[in-house]
Amino acid sequence: MSRKGREQIDSTRKKTRILILGGGFAGVFAAKALLKQARRNKDLNIEIELVSERNYFVFQPLLPEVAAGTINAQDAVTPLRLLLKGVKVRMGEVRHIDFAQRRVQLAQGSKRIPQHRAYDHLVLALGQRTILEKFPGFAEHSFCLRDLAHAHALRNHVLQCLEHADVTENPALKQSLLTFVVAGAGFSGVEIAGELHEMLERALPMYPSIQTHEIRTLLIQRGHQILPELPEQLGHYAAQKLRARGVEVLYGTSLARATAEAVYTQDGQRINTRCLITTIGNGPTQVVEQLGLTLERGRLVTTPSMQIPDHPRVWALGDAAYIPMGESCAPTTAQFAVAEAKVLAANLLEQIRTGNCAGAFAYTPRGAMASIGDYRAVADLSGVRVSGLAAWLMWRAFYIGMLPGFSTRLRVALNWFFDYFLPRSIVQVKTTSDSAARVVHYAAGDVLFAPGQVVDGFYSIIHGQLESRVPDDRAEHDHFVRILGPGDHWGERSLVEGTQTVGWLTALEDCEVLVLKRNDFARLRQGVPQLRAYLDHLPEKKYPPALRHTPGEQAET
Amino acid sequence: MSRKGREQIDSTRKKTRILILGGGFAGVFAAKALLKQARRNKDLNIEIELVSERNYFVFQPLLPEVAAGTINAQDAVTPLRLLLKGVKVRMGEVRHIDFAQRRVQLAQGSKRIPQHRAYDHLVLALGQRTILEKFPGFAEHSFCLRDLAHAHALRNHVLQCLEHADVTENPALKQSLLTFVVAGAGFSGVEIAGELHEMLERALPMYPSIQTHEIRTLLIQRGHQILPELPEQLGHYAAQKLRARGVEVLYGTSLARATAEAVYTQDGQRINTRCLITTIGNGPTQVVEQLGLTLERGRLVTTPSMQIPDHPRVWALGDAAYIPMGESCAPTTAQFAVAEAKVLAANLLEQIRTGNCAGAFAYTPRGAMASIGDYRAVADLSGVRVSGLAAWLMWRAFYIGMLPGFSTRLRVALNWFFDYFLPRSIVQVKTTSDSAARVVHYAAGDVLFAPGQVVDGFYSIIHGQLESRVPDDRAEHDHFVRILGPGDHWGERSLVEGTQTVGWLTALEDCEVLVLKRNDFARLRQGVPQLRAYLDHLPEKKYPPALRHTPGEQAET
Repeated sequence: MSRKGREQIDSTRKKTRILILGGGFAGVFAAKALLKQARRNKDLNIEIELVSERNYFVFQPLLPEVAAGTINAQDAVTPLRLLLKGVKVRMGEVRHIDFAQRRVQLAQGSKRIPQHRAYDHLVLALGQRTILEKFPGFAEHSFCLRDLAHAHALRNHVLQCLEHADVTENPALKQSLLTFVVAGAGFSGVEIAGELHEMLERALPMYPSIQTHEIRTLLIQRGHQILPELPEQLGHYAAQKLRARGVEVLYGTSLARATAEAVYTQDGQRINTRCLITTIGNGPTQVVEQLGLTLERGRLVTTPSMQIPDHPRVWALGDAAYIPMGESCAPTTAQFAVAEAKVLAANLLEQIRTGNCAGAFAYTPRGAMASIGDYRAVADLSGVRVSGLAAWLMWRAFYIGMLPGFSTRLRVALNWFFDYFLPRSIVQVKTTSDSAARVVHYAAGDVLFAPGQVVDGFYSIIHGQLESRVPDDRAEHDHFVRILGPGDHWGERSLVEGTQTVGWLTALEDCEVLVLKRNDFARLRQGVPQLRAYLDHLPEKKYPPALRHTPGEQAET
Repeated sequence: MSRKGREQIDSTRKKTRILILGGGFAGVFAAKALLKQARRNKDLNIEIELVSERNYFVFQPLLPEVAAGTINAQDAVTPLRLLLKGVKVRMGEVRHIDFAQRRVQLAQGSKRIPQHRAYDHLVLALGQRTILEKFPGFAEHSFCLRDLAHAHALRNHVLQCLEHADVTENPALKQSLLTFVVAGAGFSGVEIAGELHEMLERALPMYPSIQTHEIRTLLIQRGHQILPELPEQLGHYAAQKLRARGVEVLYGTSLARATAEAVYTQDGQRINTRCLITTIGNGPTQVVEQLGLTLERGRLVTTPSMQIPDHPRVWALGDAAYIPMGESCAPTTAQFAVAEAKVLAANLLEQIRTGNCAGAFAYTPRGAMASIGDYRAVADLSGVRVSGLAAWLMWRAFYIGMLPGFSTRLRVALNWFFDYFLPRSIVQVKTTSDSAARVVHYAAGDVLFAPGQVVDGFYSIIHGQLESRVPDDRAEHDHFVRILGPGDHWGERSLVEGTQTVGWLTALEDCEVLVLKRNDFARLRQGVPQLRAYLDHLPEKKYPPALRHTPGEQAET
């Protein structure tokens, strides 16, 4: 069919295409509100398509409970296609928006062939992403909780720490494995600390060598109140409850950096831990950054009616939008995103009907709630403060009310009910592979390898200096010492020969080291002949002697 | 403490250390049987430790249902620590067994520091692993179902195929995305084909652009009966039920190889598919291979009393063991593993008490069951044949009976009950990253890239030749053609510049190409200065012109 022919059919249909980018609270509730309001106006002939990188909606406030195993992963998410009947759902990644031609370029499928989707109205609901560049080591050594995959990764890591702590005979290692640090004490940080601590305590009966007092959960807050969004009194109540259960709340503290073995506070304190969870560092997604539109605090500036200035067919809401509200702007919470969605839908449909819209966004929040674990929550409902089990039940009821269909609600409610009676599962579901190439940070003095360890990856120094120190067999108190710097690498032989270390490898200053896992290194060596040629002709001295083979005995750890 | 002092204390305790390697049916039921039988003999003072790479027991026969979303992942697994109260559970990887010194070397924790565990008696229950070397491309392009992670990976991939098939406008691609191939029609293959087909049919209401008749599920069997372990009549019943529901059963067919886009049968037939599931290719684990003991069909040969010949303190059972039974050997099924565990425990305790044991393993199987999806199963119980819903309920009841604790059983039963009424979830939980470096197989004629695609990885040819063909702007019917071979690579620039392809890249013969994902390539380039230096000084001609940048239009697909 010629392009002209297609356009004629389109014009007889008079369908107005609304394209929503993003499948979080903002995108999903905008689609729902548009559907609902359009049904009341039969003369409107609209078609809604929503693009999301995931095929499901994740109820982010429940992710701490998924990580803690309180609820099943599938009870915190709903397939977009089930939630949005009547909306075309497309899984894809937004690559580019062409405002002049009114179309969006997407990449979809495993071959990532670009697609163009045309729109009459475009709704930007792209959310934010975690940006941790200001905190060295955080990107590599911290967990965040934006998505279901993050909750799984955190859960597996915490269980790995417990499994290892239960069998190690090294007290310092055990202490480090049992120290859990949560950075930031907003809603998310408080819920994570509370749920994590409850999970640890409930798991302990399964780990006979770990005592309750050996577990440390630290909640680190820069300011002097936790839950700063809530009235001070509720923040104090939450802090008091958390402390009574054993969570250490550190006020006036902020973290500077993280390594594979510790976190460091701004004032130089070192806390040994293998598990840092961060709830800080929000910034614009890459797509939002590249649009060339005005940003304020990393968010898209809109008119009070949620349009992008000079782009009357482009709208924005949710965490990605900077919507003026009096002297300030709308806060980035799920509750506001839902409220914004209703106003945006009304404005957009009004604009389609009349060509005009004037509805400025205004909203008075009904309240706020935070779960703090152990069946306790705090809530502030239009000034009425509720705490404890009552608040927790309200919090859960709110979510249940959002789910589609009676049977789904019943199943989720029953699963929650059973959690009360059942031992918490400690099943550690490892994914088939974690990231293959990762960057590991070390601080001066950290020991990367001691004698008798297995080198099971390829290591290459990105920056910093390390010292390799190996006992000299010929003289009792002598050591061979070599300094390693950027570009030095090791592990390529021990991967083949299955060797163990005979000396120490110690960071002399703060270092970054690239680590490539055994299998991936083997594939890469096989697949890139230039790399293989280089590695096969390395002189013997390239190998740090600390990592050479020994058939001898190793100390138990 | 001196070694001598320690031995004296040990001898006053008189604890006999039994070390079990492996946490599958064989290992878990051996531990349970030892515990139970030892309780009856109060004079026995034994200590049992079980080493497993996972911290949970996975009920493998339920994995097809996890992959299909019939049941929650957590309902198919039980934490080892919960299942084996009274047994010390240690997560670790077996590296080496020293029979002379009676100890096992393990690697545990993230630093993988070797540990030694001493034993008085050692039980080898190490199972088997999937070995696919005989089938080119299978290792890279097929899914297997041994572990929970495999079930998750398969599920996500199937949902990805549906999501993509729902939105693509390329009919050949759609057909390939909707063709699912299961290789091998034993218990596992039949259950996977049945469950997968049911999952696909139940998911379709969510995918409005996919029609039921477009879905193809193929079950491929080398022989002329499915479920060859069962009486012929039951195999026919199962095949008939599967066919009635739309599964295509192909007898007398075996697969030769797989590529990223198709599977090939031995007689040269090509079946386009993006999803191959294999249930074939069992072989010994690496540890078993390296023990230096006698193997038969890849399994450890034991005496009839399940001891390793000439090693009276070493025992073996389960899939890893070749236990003589009359003229043949015990089959590798869960049912036999459980039966073996009881005899092994009795023999082992008898040997501790009297220094002798004579109990030869003998067992007459009570029957066999296979679930075929859609609430149907087939069973042969000591000659009595049951099929349909009744068999399916028995199959489920058998599992429920194995679970520890009434409340767990109730929860699992309720979840299964709800599955009957609820829409099947189509949530695709992506893991944070798949394997970073993978090898992709292509067959002669396969098109790797067509104009307008996004190159989002680093590609390097391991073997085979490819042709790059790019239209010449100056002459209408001319093309620039270049032949690429092993060592040629591309993608390193487009990753940086975000370019799209302008020509075709076609395999001239069967090829293997290494693909490294965007992020991992960036990390590797940063971390290995030698690689960066090489890439930065590549001459312009290294880049296949088909992959150069174009700002133009792309065809929709």
